[in-house]
Amino acid sequence: MNQIPLSAINLAQKLETFPEHWQPRVVGRFNGHDLMVVKVKGEFVWHQHDDTDDFFLVLRGRITIRMRAGDVEVGPGELFVVPRGMEHCPVAQEEAHLLLIERAGTPNTGDEATAAVRRDA
Amino acid sequence: MNQIPLSAINLAQKLETFPEHWQPRVVGRFNGHDLMVVKVKGEFVWHQHDDTDDFFLVLRGRITIRMRAGDVEVGPGELFVVPRGMEHCPVAQEEAHLLLIERAGTPNTGDEATAAVRRDA
Repeated sequence: MNQIPLSAINLAQKLETFPEHWQPRVVGRFNGHDLMVVKVKGEFVWHQHDDTDDFFLVLRGRITIRMRAGDVEVGPGELFVVPRGMEHCPVAQEEAHLLLIERAGTPNTGDEATAAVRRDA
Repeated sequence: MNQIPLSAINLAQKLETFPEHWQPRVVGRFNGHDLMVVKVKGEFVWHQHDDTDDFFLVLRGRITIRMRAGDVEVGPGELFVVPRGMEHCPVAQEEAHLLLIERAGTPNTGDEATAAVRRDA
């Protein structure tokens, strides 16, 4: 990922390369952030990131982002940014595909001990 | 934009609110960056951003990002990040709709004198 690839990143193609849920794959970098695709289904864990906002763009399907202040429904072509420090719990009734952006190295659960290993797609 | 809106941002709906080309509209914020939608058609100007990478995600249509090292074609559901300091010139034969992410306050032409005013959608 250190050389500049002179081709676009096709998100659907990247998503076809793995079946697992809640295992983000890094597809690019941007200003010290990881650009990731992820498949989700079911309920994640309540967590928060104290040092980074959490960017969700739904590419396929629908998710609910539960927060203490209320739930946000996010459908295809919609994005939502969870502000840093805000507890949240993503939930998907059916499989959904997302583009995520987080500061590079952020544990996806907010906790190194339980975080998914961040792999390249 | 200072309060946290507890609803998702629908990018297509935001794009329906204006007709102009090359006039990005801010739809959200993320870690000191502006999240913007823009309609493009025709050829922009060659420019570079010395302090920020330049994130392009094509939502509809196709664009070509010309760079000195070669052209990159970016279609729907594809993204490309132009590294900071790299001269580039976006071109769209037909109207295309994009999600852009740049550090907040970045002039879209790389130059305050010629930049579009950054308005909220």
